[in-house]
Formats: sequence, structure tokens, C-alpha cells
Amino acid sequence: MNDFMSLALVQANLALKNGEIPVGAVIVDPIEKVVLASSGNRVISDSDPTAHAEILVIRETAKVLGSYKLEGLDIYVTLEPCAMCASAISISRLRKLVFGAYDPKTGAVDHGPKIFSQKTTHHKPEVIGGVRERESSVYLRDFFRLMRS
Amino acid sequence: MNDFMSLALVQANLALKNGEIPVGAVIVDPIEKVVLASSGNRVISDSDPTAHAEILVIRETAKVLGSYKLEGLDIYVTLEPCAMCASAISISRLRKLVFGAYDPKTGAVDHGPKIFSQKTTHHKPEVIGGVRERESSVYLRDFFRLMRS
Repeated sequence: MNDFMSLALVQANLALKNGEIPVGAVIVDPIEKVVLASSGNRVISDSDPTAHAEILVIRETAKVLGSYKLEGLDIYVTLEPCAMCASAISISRLRKLVFGAYDPKTGAVDHGPKIFSQKTTHHKPEVIGGVRERESSVYLRDFFRLMRS
Repeated sequence: MNDFMSLALVQANLALKNGEIPVGAVIVDPIEKVVLASSGNRVISDSDPTAHAEILVIRETAKVLGSYKLEGLDIYVTLEPCAMCASAISISRLRKLVFGAYDPKTGAVDHGPKIFSQKTTHHKPEVIGGVRERESSVYLRDFFRLMRS
């Protein structure tokens, strides 16, 4: 599990270097233990408000597999997903979500709309939060420090 | 307002003909009264679980304008947006959301997580629901009838 989060952290660091909010994500096949897609945020570089790391890896994986159903696959992301991304994780039927830092401001898994606790959310993945939380937070702290400087 | 919803309904009808869930959306500049993007759902044809009509027009408009902020623009959609799309509407800072049919099953504006009523949703658009509701519903009824046949 740590190895996959390491890859997500690499993507978060690359996003930081590109001036993006440093969040990274990977989608993996837990049986074959292979990574199907990895990305950091690309909102600014792609001029796309939906280009959060999670959305990008979901789209990429669906394209690679030629299917809009990602059943049996897991997503690792360095930050608690927002409502858009949590909902996309449900819609794409990912099996498991592992995330790093908790995000009380815009997170939507343990905070705010708590997407996976809603009766109207039909598919609910297994969720593990707080994995390598400190490292994920360091990138975000550095980013917001840079923004203020 | 009716004219823009007519265009969204045309897109919903095209989606129906393509075997997609019949939802259509357009993004317009309310001052210039021009349409910047229009699309129906393309989840199946694009093999993309995030390819809801709203996400597609948001991405297209951001690309056209070269900006991830869609301030001052309005979105018309034939169905109450789901949590992914409602959150994307907030993230992209659209000014106003006009939607057709209410969706108690997966809608996330007046139902479920009620995205725009959450304290953690920072930008909240003006919302008008139920516009030409009957026509939007007819397409959806026809689709689910076809699915069962």
C-alpha cells in the first residue's frame, strides 16, 4: 500500500513544481499489482477546472481499458477527495480509496457532504484515510507558503 | 432562458439517439447571449465515467477561454446535476445553474448531499430548477423504457 502511495506522492511533488496544488493520484490493479494511471493536478496547465488528479487518473484508466466501469481497481490519492472527485470515484465504481491528508476545508469523504455516507450514493468504495498524511501535508504547506510569499 | 434550455434539450435528444442517458447541457455568456459550449452525455461513447454533459461543457468552455475560472457564465442542464457535476459547477465558479427535471435518485442540488447547501462549498451559483421539467423527463422516460425492452 505504501508503494502505491509513494507513486502518488511523486505526482504531488511534480504538481508542486508545476505550480499546481500539490495533489497526486494513481489507480492500480490490486491483483496484478500494476499501476494503470498516475497524475498530479493539472487545473492550471490544462486550463481545466475539473483536472484534479483523481479525475485525470479515472479518465486515463477508463480510456486504457475501454470501459467506463473501473470495478475491482483501487485509487491512491495524497489528499482527501473533494465532492467532485469523491462522486467520480463512486460513479466509476472503484473498489477502494486510500488517501493521505485529511482536508477539513474541501474534503468530502470525512467532511462536508460526506459523499460515501449519502443514501443517494449507490456505489461506496472501501475507504482508508490518513496514509502517510504528514508527507502529503508537507507539500501542501510548501505550496501555500509559496503562494503567500 | 427558454431558448438556452431548448438547446440543452436538443443535446439530450442527441444523447438518447446515441444510446446515452439523455441529459444535455449548454454554457452561455448571459451578457453577450452566446453559447460557448453544448454537449450531451458521452459516458459510453467516450469510455469515460466523468463524461456527463455538465463536465463536458465546463471542460470545453475552459479550453475555449483558456481559463479554469468560468465566472459570469451560466449553465443550462436538462436534469438536476449529480454530486460530481454540482461540485464541478462550484469549482469552475459558474454564475447561475438552470436545470430541468428534478432527480431524487442521484441529484445533488435539492437532494442527497445538497452540494450548494454545504458550508464547505465555497462558491454557490444562483439556482433555478424545474425549467421545462416535463420535456426533460420525457427523454429520460423513453430511455429507461428502451433499456427495459
